[in-house]
Amino acid sequence: MRSPMNHAMEKKLILVGAGPGDPELITLRGIRAIREAHVILYDALANAQLLDYAQPDALKIFVGKRRKKAAYSQQEIHRLILHYTAHFGTVVRLKGGDPFVFGRGYEEMDFARSQGIPVEIVPGISSAIALPALQKIPLTLRGMAESFWVATATVADGSLSADLMLAARSTATVIILMGLHKIPEITSLYRLLGKGNLPVGVIENGSLPGERLITGTMDTIADQIAISAIQPPALIIAGPVVTLHASWNEVREPQIQTA
Amino acid sequence: MRSPMNHAMEKKLILVGAGPGDPELITLRGIRAIREAHVILYDALANAQLLDYAQPDALKIFVGKRRKKAAYSQQEIHRLILHYTAHFGTVVRLKGGDPFVFGRGYEEMDFARSQGIPVEIVPGISSAIALPALQKIPLTLRGMAESFWVATATVADGSLSADLMLAARSTATVIILMGLHKIPEITSLYRLLGKGNLPVGVIENGSLPGERLITGTMDTIADQIAISAIQPPALIIAGPVVTLHASWNEVREPQIQTA
Repeated sequence: MRSPMNHAMEKKLILVGAGPGDPELITLRGIRAIREAHVILYDALANAQLLDYAQPDALKIFVGKRRKKAAYSQQEIHRLILHYTAHFGTVVRLKGGDPFVFGRGYEEMDFARSQGIPVEIVPGISSAIALPALQKIPLTLRGMAESFWVATATVADGSLSADLMLAARSTATVIILMGLHKIPEITSLYRLLGKGNLPVGVIENGSLPGERLITGTMDTIADQIAISAIQPPALIIAGPVVTLHASWNEVREPQIQTA
Repeated sequence: MRSPMNHAMEKKLILVGAGPGDPELITLRGIRAIREAHVILYDALANAQLLDYAQPDALKIFVGKRRKKAAYSQQEIHRLILHYTAHFGTVVRLKGGDPFVFGRGYEEMDFARSQGIPVEIVPGISSAIALPALQKIPLTLRGMAESFWVATATVADGSLSADLMLAARSTATVIILMGLHKIPEITSLYRLLGKGNLPVGVIENGSLPGERLITGTMDTIADQIAISAIQPPALIIAGPVVTLHASWNEVREPQIQTA
C-alpha cells in the first residue's frame, strides 16, 4: 500500500464512464485513468474486469447496488470521495455507461468541487446509443427517424415522465433506460396516441454474454416480455428503425434473438 | 503490402466509431479493429492520429469531405467497400463519433450485407453526449432535465426538423448537431414559444485543441456567435443544465471559455 502522505498534494476526482458492459467498450482515456488511480470507487454497472487494469496496490471499493440494496448512500459516497482524495490522491469513480447520463455524476462532481477537489470527466459509451448499434439498429436514418430522444421511464416522484408524452408524438426514435417496470404505462400511452402498431424492441443484458433482443409492437411487447421473462437491466427502443433489425422480417410471432 | 489473395476468404466490414475528436476517446475495441485492419476508409471527423495504430502496410484511404467537397460520393464509398473487402479482407470504416448517430453507417452496413459481406459495429463516443460532459455540463439532472433529445437542425429537404417543435416544449435538454447555420430559425422557434430566456451553449471544436464554449440565452446567442466568430463544427446545447457550467455565474456578458 502506498503511503497516504505521498499523494496528499495531488488530490483529484476522475469520473470515468465504463461503457455499457463489454469491457472493450471503455475508452483509452478511461483505461489510463484506472491505471493511474490510487483508489477506485466502482458501481454495479461497471464491468469488474476493468479493475484488472488497476495497479496491484490500488484500493478497489464497490459502492453500487446488489440485490436492490445500496452498499453506500449517495452522501456516504461523497464522504468516501472526500476521505480518499485527502489521503490517497487520485480517486477514480467508475460508473456504468457515461457518468453524466442518468447517473449521479453531476452531484458527485459538484460535491468534490465544493470541497476544492479538482474534477475531470472521462465520457463513456452510453447504453442508450451503443446497445441499439450493437444490435445493428441505427438510431437515426434519413426519411425514417430525424432525431432520437433518451429518457428514463419515471421522474423522481415515480410518475411517468411528461416528456414521454411529447416524445411519443414525434418522429424521434425513443430510447428508455430502466423502464421495464413501466411497460404497461408506456405502451398505454402510445396506444392512446393511436400508435399501437409502433415497432418496439427490448434489449436485455446488452453487450454482455446472454444478451437478448425481442421485437414487437406497442400492442404486443408487454406479453412478449412476460413470455420471454426479460429481466432488468433492459433497454427499450421505440420507433420505425426497429424494423431494420434482422429479425423483423421473420414471422411476426414473439421474437427472441440471442447475440 | 500483403498479397490480396491471402485474405480473400476473410472479408469483413467493421464500422468503427472514432469518438468526438480527442484520440484517447476511442474504445479499446476500436483500436483493436484498426490494428487488425488491412484497409481503413476514414472520415474527416475521425482523428487521423488514430491511423498510427494501424499496421504499417495497411491501406489508409481518406473518404471524407475537405473544404465542403466530398472525396467520394456515398455510392463510390460503397464500391470501395466492395472492392477492398474482396481483395484485402478486413476493411475498417472509421467514422467520427458513433457510426449510427447521424452518419451514413446504416447505409454502408446495408450495402455490405446485400453483397454478402459480414458487418460488425463498434460503437463510438458520440459528440452529443461527450462534448457537454467534457465541459462539465450534465445532460440530465434530477429536478432540472428529465431527458435529452438529440437532433440535427435540418431534415433531408433542408427544412427545420418538426421534432424540434416538440422538443422545445419539453423539459428535455436539446442537443443539436451541425446546427450553426440554422441558429436564426432555432432561436426564433424558442422565442415564439416564450423561451427567449432559455440558457443555451455552443461548443466549437469540442474535445480538440482550440475548443471554445459560449453560453447565453436564446435571445442573445446569435449575436454572441457572430461576435465570437464561432465556426463549424459546433454543437448547440439548450436547457437549464447550461446554467451549471462554471462560466454561468460570471457577468452575463457574452462568455468565451477556452478549454
